[in-house]
Amino acid sequence: MAIQDSPMINHRGPEFAAILKRVTLRLQYFFQTASPVLTFPASGTGGQECAIVNLFSPGDHVVSITIGSFGDRLAKIATTYGLQVTRIEFPWGQAADPATVEARLQEVAPYRGVLLTHNETSTGVTNDVQALAALIRRHNANALIVVDAVSSLGSIPLEMDLWDIDVVFTGSQKGWMTPPGIMMIAASQRAWEANKTAKLPRFYFDWASARKKLEVWQHPTTPPVSLFYALDVALEMMLAEGREAFFERHQRAGEYVRSRAKAMGLQLLANHERASNTVTAILTPEGIDTKALLKKLREQDSVVLAGGQDRLEGKIFRVGHLGFFSEADLAHTMDRVEARLHELGFKG
Amino acid sequence: MAIQDSPMINHRGPEFAAILKRVTLRLQYFFQTASPVLTFPASGTGGQECAIVNLFSPGDHVVSITIGSFGDRLAKIATTYGLQVTRIEFPWGQAADPATVEARLQEVAPYRGVLLTHNETSTGVTNDVQALAALIRRHNANALIVVDAVSSLGSIPLEMDLWDIDVVFTGSQKGWMTPPGIMMIAASQRAWEANKTAKLPRFYFDWASARKKLEVWQHPTTPPVSLFYALDVALEMMLAEGREAFFERHQRAGEYVRSRAKAMGLQLLANHERASNTVTAILTPEGIDTKALLKKLREQDSVVLAGGQDRLEGKIFRVGHLGFFSEADLAHTMDRVEARLHELGFKG
Repeated sequence: MAIQDSPMINHRGPEFAAILKRVTLRLQYFFQTASPVLTFPASGTGGQECAIVNLFSPGDHVVSITIGSFGDRLAKIATTYGLQVTRIEFPWGQAADPATVEARLQEVAPYRGVLLTHNETSTGVTNDVQALAALIRRHNANALIVVDAVSSLGSIPLEMDLWDIDVVFTGSQKGWMTPPGIMMIAASQRAWEANKTAKLPRFYFDWASARKKLEVWQHPTTPPVSLFYALDVALEMMLAEGREAFFERHQRAGEYVRSRAKAMGLQLLANHERASNTVTAILTPEGIDTKALLKKLREQDSVVLAGGQDRLEGKIFRVGHLGFFSEADLAHTMDRVEARLHELGFKG
Repeated sequence: MAIQDSPMINHRGPEFAAILKRVTLRLQYFFQTASPVLTFPASGTGGQECAIVNLFSPGDHVVSITIGSFGDRLAKIATTYGLQVTRIEFPWGQAADPATVEARLQEVAPYRGVLLTHNETSTGVTNDVQALAALIRRHNANALIVVDAVSSLGSIPLEMDLWDIDVVFTGSQKGWMTPPGIMMIAASQRAWEANKTAKLPRFYFDWASARKKLEVWQHPTTPPVSLFYALDVALEMMLAEGREAFFERHQRAGEYVRSRAKAMGLQLLANHERASNTVTAILTPEGIDTKALLKKLREQDSVVLAGGQDRLEGKIFRVGHLGFFSEADLAHTMDRVEARLHELGFKG
């Protein structure tokens, strides 16, 4: 169309097809899967819904392993769509304990799938998905294992095919150094088989339509073209840095933020072993108002941190360290946190 | 989070809230409604699904007035979600004839809603939504009237409240001079009442959650922040130009493209009276290969036009004229179309 004389190219034309092909193949490398990676105009929550509606039928029984707000959301969507959901919950701030999960799986009714988060953004905890997937598979060879990797994929190791995970999804705004608006999702052969008989209604998030269009490097509906330009550039940068180097940079960042927080006399919500390398949740010290701290940092230092969600509101603040950041950025952030906490009366 | 020291601001912070408030109020002005305009990370098809899942329950009977590919898609989504759908179809290239619709409505079983497109992008035809909405309302005072205004709103007059329409939705990439990725939707009081008892499952596209978060100028999930920056600027430009001036510019554009096409000896798919002012569908002359024409224009002139969809593939090409374009752009486009057609042997 005439308006597309401007830089916004036609999403059905050869230029966009070349970008989509390159992005898709590179995403497969980062997902560590041979399955096609489908992309949708959506947030990470769209990935949660997309996984559920493509795999299951009303009344199916699924087990939901939840350690925080996003795990809860996944369970809630499953319930909303008429699935029977058994929850295996852990206190916020802890990871799912594999031995506990294994014991609980022996007790529950036969299940069709298991839903879990890789990295729980709300608490700054990373589940040991490799161990959890292995024990679920031992217990139920045909279980559909769904992993919400919104805030981990690309930044924290996750080997979809090797670990035999059935569905993995993520969002452009997390580890991908791209603005929000693209959701990426991949499904195993087992998941594609399940998709054929899954009866939940779906159209916008339908995998089969997306896969059919992907064969000609298109989407069923209009993709967020400008965000694909950004993602294409970001993936180029990630490859230049190296996948494993990217993981290591996040590990160093996590260790740095945790060590700085401890050196200041602050307490972390997560125990060290399963603390996230993309987001650190720090307990707000007694006598300090979280909102006042975040406001000071935002207005006086241009340092934007997040508060706690749901039951953690007012109790923690969170420092993100994923995607595009430098060690100098993090040092500056932690310096400002330290200075403002002392201003507010924290003795440390 | 630390990464948000960079220009991508926190979507739960005060800066984004200010943008969302300004964008929402301005969208209400362009929707011509007092109802809140909800925004979702999605394409226009997401708007179709969003309307249906929020209004209806399985088994509800709806009438689908369709004049092309996007009208068909709306009907298909309704069927996918278990509604009973009665179609009132018109040949592609024609608008829905009000007298025919009125007669057909007398014959069909009692219906809960009516689905229709305002501007059918696939055929370049604009329905007389004002007349259609009025006759539907006369026949069924409680009908839920759903209008897909993806490629018309902002560019072609549509008065949501005055015409008593229940749901209107559009997409950022059409008249709004913004890249694709934001879907906007508004619902009447009648539609909000229906929403309370609508039983189709929904989470990602749930109106009630979106409205609740809009009260604090936020979204339930991560919004496409960078696209909101663009939409904010675009709405500022549209207001500076003036809503009615914007409509007039599109009318002039439509008239110009149609008159140029006719002067070249080409035939239009739409009859003049209901021809769209945002997209013009031109019949490919006999003996000319549509793909070859579009390829020449794209590769040699950087003029990107669209072909036909579905049953119109190979039979038409489409010139878009909406949002951000100048009269010089359109003149250049039509000059190149004329030159390339003659090169391919068209005598005109």
